[in-house]
Amino acid sequence: MIETTKDEQYIILNSPVVMPKASGFLWNDHMMMDVNCRGYTVSQFMQPEPAKYSHAPNLEAKTFMQPEQPYYAHHPGRFVYIKDEESNELFSAPYEPVRAKPDEYQFIVGKHDISWKVVFNEIELNMSLSLSPDEPIEMWKVTVKNNSNRPRKISIYPSFTIGYMSWMNQAGQYEADLQGIVCTSITPYQKYTDYEKIKTLKDMTFLLADKAPLSWEANWEVFEGEGGIHAPSAIEGETLSNSDARYETPAAVMQYRLSFEAGDEEQLRFLFGPAHNKQDIAAIREKYFVQRNAAGEDGFAVAQQAYKQYIERGAGNITIQTPDSSFDQFVNHWLPRQIYYHGQTNRLTTDPQTRNYLQDNMGMSYIDPATARQAFLTAMKQQAASGAMPDGIILHKDAELKYINQVPHTDHCIWLPLSLVTYLDETNDYSILEELIPFQDDPKPVSVFEHIVRAMNWLIQTRDERGLNYIEQGDWCDPMNMVGYKGKGVSGWLTIASAYAFQVWAEICDNAGQPAVAEQFRTEANKTNEIVNEHLWDGNWYARGITDDNVKFGIHTDVEGKIYINPQGWSLMSGAADAEKQPKILKAVEELLETPYGVEKLAPSFTKMREDVGRVTQKHPGSAENGAVYNHAAAFYIFALYQVDQQDNAYRLLRKMIPGPDLADIIHRGQLPAFIPNYYRGAYRQIPRTAGRSSHLFNTGTAAWVYRCIIDGLFGVKGSKDGLSIQPQLPSDWQTASIQRQFRGAAFNIVIERHTDVREMAIYVDEQMIEGHTVRNIQAGEKYEVLVKLPQK
Amino acid sequence: MIETTKDEQYIILNSPVVMPKASGFLWNDHMMMDVNCRGYTVSQFMQPEPAKYSHAPNLEAKTFMQPEQPYYAHHPGRFVYIKDEESNELFSAPYEPVRAKPDEYQFIVGKHDISWKVVFNEIELNMSLSLSPDEPIEMWKVTVKNNSNRPRKISIYPSFTIGYMSWMNQAGQYEADLQGIVCTSITPYQKYTDYEKIKTLKDMTFLLADKAPLSWEANWEVFEGEGGIHAPSAIEGETLSNSDARYETPAAVMQYRLSFEAGDEEQLRFLFGPAHNKQDIAAIREKYFVQRNAAGEDGFAVAQQAYKQYIERGAGNITIQTPDSSFDQFVNHWLPRQIYYHGQTNRLTTDPQTRNYLQDNMGMSYIDPATARQAFLTAMKQQAASGAMPDGIILHKDAELKYINQVPHTDHCIWLPLSLVTYLDETNDYSILEELIPFQDDPKPVSVFEHIVRAMNWLIQTRDERGLNYIEQGDWCDPMNMVGYKGKGVSGWLTIASAYAFQVWAEICDNAGQPAVAEQFRTEANKTNEIVNEHLWDGNWYARGITDDNVKFGIHTDVEGKIYINPQGWSLMSGAADAEKQPKILKAVEELLETPYGVEKLAPSFTKMREDVGRVTQKHPGSAENGAVYNHAAAFYIFALYQVDQQDNAYRLLRKMIPGPDLADIIHRGQLPAFIPNYYRGAYRQIPRTAGRSSHLFNTGTAAWVYRCIIDGLFGVKGSKDGLSIQPQLPSDWQTASIQRQFRGAAFNIVIERHTDVREMAIYVDEQMIEGHTVRNIQAGEKYEVLVKLPQK
Repeated sequence: MIETTKDEQYIILNSPVVMPKASGFLWNDHMMMDVNCRGYTVSQFMQPEPAKYSHAPNLEAKTFMQPEQPYYAHHPGRFVYIKDEESNELFSAPYEPVRAKPDEYQFIVGKHDISWKVVFNEIELNMSLSLSPDEPIEMWKVTVKNNSNRPRKISIYPSFTIGYMSWMNQAGQYEADLQGIVCTSITPYQKYTDYEKIKTLKDMTFLLADKAPLSWEANWEVFEGEGGIHAPSAIEGETLSNSDARYETPAAVMQYRLSFEAGDEEQLRFLFGPAHNKQDIAAIREKYFVQRNAAGEDGFAVAQQAYKQYIERGAGNITIQTPDSSFDQFVNHWLPRQIYYHGQTNRLTTDPQTRNYLQDNMGMSYIDPATARQAFLTAMKQQAASGAMPDGIILHKDAELKYINQVPHTDHCIWLPLSLVTYLDETNDYSILEELIPFQDDPKPVSVFEHIVRAMNWLIQTRDERGLNYIEQGDWCDPMNMVGYKGKGVSGWLTIASAYAFQVWAEICDNAGQPAVAEQFRTEANKTNEIVNEHLWDGNWYARGITDDNVKFGIHTDVEGKIYINPQGWSLMSGAADAEKQPKILKAVEELLETPYGVEKLAPSFTKMREDVGRVTQKHPGSAENGAVYNHAAAFYIFALYQVDQQDNAYRLLRKMIPGPDLADIIHRGQLPAFIPNYYRGAYRQIPRTAGRSSHLFNTGTAAWVYRCIIDGLFGVKGSKDGLSIQPQLPSDWQTASIQRQFRGAAFNIVIERHTDVREMAIYVDEQMIEGHTVRNIQAGEKYEVLVKLPQK
Repeated sequence: MIETTKDEQYIILNSPVVMPKASGFLWNDHMMMDVNCRGYTVSQFMQPEPAKYSHAPNLEAKTFMQPEQPYYAHHPGRFVYIKDEESNELFSAPYEPVRAKPDEYQFIVGKHDISWKVVFNEIELNMSLSLSPDEPIEMWKVTVKNNSNRPRKISIYPSFTIGYMSWMNQAGQYEADLQGIVCTSITPYQKYTDYEKIKTLKDMTFLLADKAPLSWEANWEVFEGEGGIHAPSAIEGETLSNSDARYETPAAVMQYRLSFEAGDEEQLRFLFGPAHNKQDIAAIREKYFVQRNAAGEDGFAVAQQAYKQYIERGAGNITIQTPDSSFDQFVNHWLPRQIYYHGQTNRLTTDPQTRNYLQDNMGMSYIDPATARQAFLTAMKQQAASGAMPDGIILHKDAELKYINQVPHTDHCIWLPLSLVTYLDETNDYSILEELIPFQDDPKPVSVFEHIVRAMNWLIQTRDERGLNYIEQGDWCDPMNMVGYKGKGVSGWLTIASAYAFQVWAEICDNAGQPAVAEQFRTEANKTNEIVNEHLWDGNWYARGITDDNVKFGIHTDVEGKIYINPQGWSLMSGAADAEKQPKILKAVEELLETPYGVEKLAPSFTKMREDVGRVTQKHPGSAENGAVYNHAAAFYIFALYQVDQQDNAYRLLRKMIPGPDLADIIHRGQLPAFIPNYYRGAYRQIPRTAGRSSHLFNTGTAAWVYRCIIDGLFGVKGSKDGLSIQPQLPSDWQTASIQRQFRGAAFNIVIERHTDVREMAIYVDEQMIEGHTVRNIQAGEKYEVLVKLPQK
C-alpha cells in the first residue's frame, strides 16, 4: 500500500475493489482539497471566510424558497422502481430515476390530488397523492395492473427520499409494529438556549404501508450500492437487505412482489411525513389504516374526502364562460385555488412581508372575508403609533423578522387602503373602520379608521423637501437597496403610489361618512401628482427614482434600467398621467417592456452592478427583480389599463400570464397552467433563449390582483356601497360572455352580449332595464338574472 | 391539456415528450408540496418555521466542516469522460460518474500531489493534481496513452463540477481569448451593509486549458440531458453543443478528440479555481501557461516544483526506523505533513478555537518554531486581563467568533502551559516569557510570564466552594452544554487538567528562574489533586463531572456515559491517581473503552437525551462527542501511559490510530493511512457494524500530540533546559530502533538496542558513555552519534 521513491512518499491504493471512501488531502495557505479516490472532491478556500468555487447543485440551507431550483439525480422525490422478475427489466415511475421511456404517460394535476398513469411493457402504474387536511401527511395510493394477457411476476419498490437529515444524529430502521420505516434525527444546534426550541420538533420521518412489505431498506448507501440511483444494486437481489442506517443517509424503500394473472390489479397505500415520536406515528397508523367509520371506510379514505372538501371551501365567487375556454378553466378553478392557498397558509412563513400579507388577504376577501377581516386587524395591531407599518407581520409567538424583513422598506403603508377597499367592496362591512385596536408601541386602542389615517400621514411625512417619498433600502418589488440608504434617495414609484393610495382612501372615507377627511386626502393626491410631474416625467415615461446623490434613474439616457413598469402603470391609476402623457406611456411600455410572456419589470436588464441603485442590478438578468416579467407588477399594469379603458391591451397581457394552451408554450415555460408563478424570465431582447421560463414559485401577490382585474376590470362586476356595479370591459372581439357571481349572499347570472344596434351599455335585471350601472337593494338568498347589452367596439 | 369531470378539475400532461419541469402543487394548513412530473418533490411543513422531512443528501449551507459527509451522484468532483469513437463505449476516470470497472486502477496519494492511473480497454489515463503554492488554484495534468497495438480514436471530456453557485446570479460561458470556461456568480446578500464584503469576493470559477478544445459545454442541464450524469446526453453527439448558462447550473466540460497510433501519448493540463474578475483569470493564464523561465519551463511546471518545496518545508524533525515499517512511513512522512498543514492553515478558519490554535502551534514548534512563537503571542494578546482566554482567536480583521466559539467553554487557559512547554523544550527560547504584550481589555503590556500566571489564577478562581472547576457550557472535547449552564455544574476533567497544567507551569517556572512561583503552583496542583480524589473518585475510575443539580455523572451506576476517558488519562498525568488507583483505571479503560480502533471517549454511548448533560448525549452514538474513538482524547491517554511507564499499552493504542497496513482494515475504516482523522466511529459494543469508520475530518489536534507521544514518550528524545534528554520507552518486543533527530541545529543519529547483558539504560555519545540521560552542550551544526543500550524487558 505504501511505496517510497527516493525523495517522495506515496500511498497507493492499488485494488480492483474500488473502495467507497478513500481520500487524500492537499492544501496550500489559501485552500484545502479533500480528494476522494472516485473523483469526488471537497475544496474550500479563504476570502477570509471559507468559500467554495465548485458547488453541489443545490443549497439545502434554511432559507426562503428559491426560484428555478435545479433538480439533480438525488433531489428528493417519491419514486417507485418496478422490476420484471422474469426479464429483469427495470423501470421507474413516474419517470425518475431510471428514466426508462414509458409506453404511455400521464401527469394529472388535479385540484386536490396529483397523479400519474404510467405504462411500461403492459404494466400499468397509477400513483396518486393527496394530503391530509389536518396534518403534514402525504397520502399515496399506488395501483399496479397487469395489462397483458399473460401472468406476470414483478417486484415494485416504493422509494421515498429521506436524504441527509442532520449532521448531528440520524438513523433509520423498519419498525414491524408500525409496518413502516422510521427515520430519526436531531436538528443540529450549538447554543443550549436553542434546545428548548429543537426538543419539540418533528425530527422523525416515517413511511407507513397498509400492507407488510416483503423486504425493506433503510440505508441509502446499501440500497444504491455501485449501481447508482438509476439502477440501485439492492434491486438486483432477490430481496432488499433489510439494512438499517446508523448515522448513515437513511432511505425508505420497501419491496412488494406481485404475481398476477392477466388483468389483475393490486393496490398499495402509504403515509409519508414528519413526526415527533414513535407514539405519534403509532397514532397516525391507527387513525389512517386501522380505525373505520360507520360506512366501513378507514381514515385514509375519509381523509381523502375531507381534503377534497377543504380545497372546495376555497372556491371562487365567479364562474365565467367566454370565447377563451382555457382562460375560463384557469379562472374558474386554478386562480381561486391559488388565492385560497395564499390566504390559508400565509406563504408558509411565520413573518410574511406586510405588503404580501395585506394583498393575500385582499384576495381572501373574495373567498373567506372573515379571515381577511381578522388579518387586517392583526396587521394594524403591529403598526407603530407613528403610522409606520412594520416590514413583516409576526404570526407566531416564536417568530421573528427574517431575511428581507430585516431590511427597511418604505411602501408598506400604501397597501392598507388598496387591500381593504376590496374587502369593503365585497362585504360592505364598514364597521371594520370602527374597530378599536392598539398600536405595537401604544396600547391605547384607536379606530382602524385612525390607524389608516396615520399610515397615510406617515407617507406624507416621510418625504424630502421636494415632496418625494424616501425609499430607504427598498420599496415594493424592485428592492434597490442602495438608492436611498444614506437617507436622501427617493422613490418615484412610491410617490406615485401614495397619490393613488390617498385617492383610494378618500373614496373609502366618502363611503364611511367622512367627507372632510376624504377631501383632505384628495387634495394630498392632487398635490402629489403635481410633484410627480414636476420631478419625474422624463418626456415619454416616468423615472423610477432619484438616488442619494441626486441622480435620476429609469430614464431614457440610462443604458440599462432605462424604463421601469411600476411608475408607468401607477401613474395611470393615480391620475398623474394626463391625456397627453397616457399614450406616450402606453407606447413606451409596448415597445420597451412587452414580450410574448407579458410586460417586463424594467428594461434593459442590468448586466452589471450600478452602485447607486444596488442589489437589483446584481440579480441575474431576467430574474424577478432585474427585468423579469414579474407577474405581480404586470398585474398592476393590467389593472391600470382597465382604469384607462384599454381593455384590448389589458386582455392581451392578462392572457400572456397563463401558460398554454399550446403545448409548445407550456414546454418552453416549463410550467403547466395550474398557477401563476411570481415571474417568467425576462431580458427578452437581451437573452431570448431563456426568456419566458417560469420561476416555479407560486408564492406571489399576483393571483389576488388578477382576480381583481377580472372582477373589477374585465367583467366589471365590483361591489359598491350601494350594490353591485356592472361595467364590463370585454375585449372588442368577444361578442358574448357570461358569468355567475356570488355577491353578498345573492347569486347573479350575468349574460353580456354585444349588439350592433346598441349605442350605449344597457343593463336588464330580471328583464327590467335599470338606471345607471348599479344593481341596488340586493337581497341575500335571491337569484338575479342580469343581461348586459354592449355596443360593438 | 385540461379536462373537466363533473365536479373535478384536472390539468393533464399527456405526452410522450416528458417535460423537464412541469409541476403541480398541493398544500394544507401545515405544509406545501411542489410535485414535479418526473417524481421530484419539494415539501415543507411548519413547526413554526418551515422545515423538511425529505432532504437532499447534502447540506450546502455555510457551516463548519462536517464528518462522514455522504457522497451522491452530483457531488462536486473532477472527472474525465472517455468515449471510444469507434465502439461508442463510455468510461470515466477516476471512476465516477460512469462507474465502469477499470482493467487497472491506482489511486496514489503523494505528499504533494494526488494522482490516478486508470486503464480501460487499453486506454491508459493518468490524472494528477497538485496545487499552486501561492493561490487557490488546482493544477491538473491528464495524460492519455494508447496501450493497444492498433490506432485508436477517442474523445476525452474533462468535466469539472461548477454546480449551483448562487441563487442571486450565475452564468457560464467559454471565453476563447482565455481558452477556458468562465463561470460568474454573485454571492447572495440582502443587507446593503454586506455589499462591501461581497463586492471583493472571488465569485468566479474558471477552467483554463493549455490546449484549445474541440467543443465545450458551460450549461449543465444541456450537458447531462436525459442521459444522466452517468451517461450525459451531450457526449452522444459528435461534439458538445457549446452552450452557455444563463441563470442555469453552469458546467465546465471540454472535448478533445484524439487519434493516436499504437503507443502514442497525449498530455493536457488544466487550471481550475476561483477568481475575482476576468483580468485576474487572464493574468493566471499568462503566469501558468504563457510565460517561461530561463530554463524554458512554463509557470505550471515551476509552480509544481514550488509546491513540492512548500510541502517539503514541513518536514518533521525526526526520522525513524523501527520493526514496524508502516508505522515508520507514517511517522516519517504523513504525520509531520499533517502537523504542518495545521500550523500553516489554522484549519482554514479565521477564528480557530483557542485550544486548537494553541495545540496546532505546539505541533508547529517542531517544524517552524518562529511561526509557533508568533502564534502564542497572538493568542495571549486576545486574553482578558482577568486571565481568561477567549473561545476563539481572531486571525483576520473581518473575522468574528462563529458557531461553537459563541458558546462559553472554560478549558482554554490550561492549554497555554501545555502547548508552550513543547516550544520551550524544543527551542530553549525562554525569552518568550519576557515578551511584553497587552491584554485585549487592557492596553498596558505585561510579560508573557504574567499572562500565564493570570491564566493559571483564573483557573483557581473559577471554582466552586469544593474547589472544582466550573464547566459553564462546555470544556474540551465533550461539549456537555447543559451540565453547568446554570452556573453551578463542575467539570471533573477540567479540575484534574488544571492540576496537570499547574505542574507543567511550575516546571517552566523552575527553568525560568522563578522557583517561588513554581512552588506556589506545585502546591496548587497538590491541593487540586486532593480535591479531585475527595469528590470525583468513583471506586474504579474518576467521574466526569457534577451537574448544576449536584448529580455526579460518568460513574459506575450510570447506564450510559458510565466512564469517560479524559478524567482517567489526565489523572495519571496530574498525579491524582496513586499507585493503588492506577491499575484500576488501566483495567477499566481496557475493559470498557478499548476497541480495535483505539479507546473510546465515553461508554456506553448515549442513545437518548440526558437533559442534565445536554448536547453530547444527543449526538449520534459513536460520533465525535458521543463515544467515538476520538483520537485527540486517545492521544492524551497514550501520552499519559508513557508517563506511567506503560509503553506496551501505549504503543498498542498508538498503532490502532493508523489505518492498515491490512487492506481489510483500510476498507473497513474507509481511509488510507495518509492522516489521522478526528475520530473513528465508536459505540463498538453497541453498534459494531459501523464502529471504526473514519470521520474523514483531518482537522484535529491529534497529530501534534501523537508526534509528542513519539518524541517525548516512545523514543524519549525530548529537549530540556540543559540539552537533549534521552529516555526511550520502546515496546518490549522491539529489539532495536534508530532515529535521526534534528535538534537546536544539531543532527543526532540515535541507535537504540536491547541487550540481554544490560541491566540499566546506558547512553553513548560519539562512543563515549555519558552520565545521566541528557546530552549537554549541544553545538548547532554538529552531528552526534548516539547509542542507547537498553535492558530486555
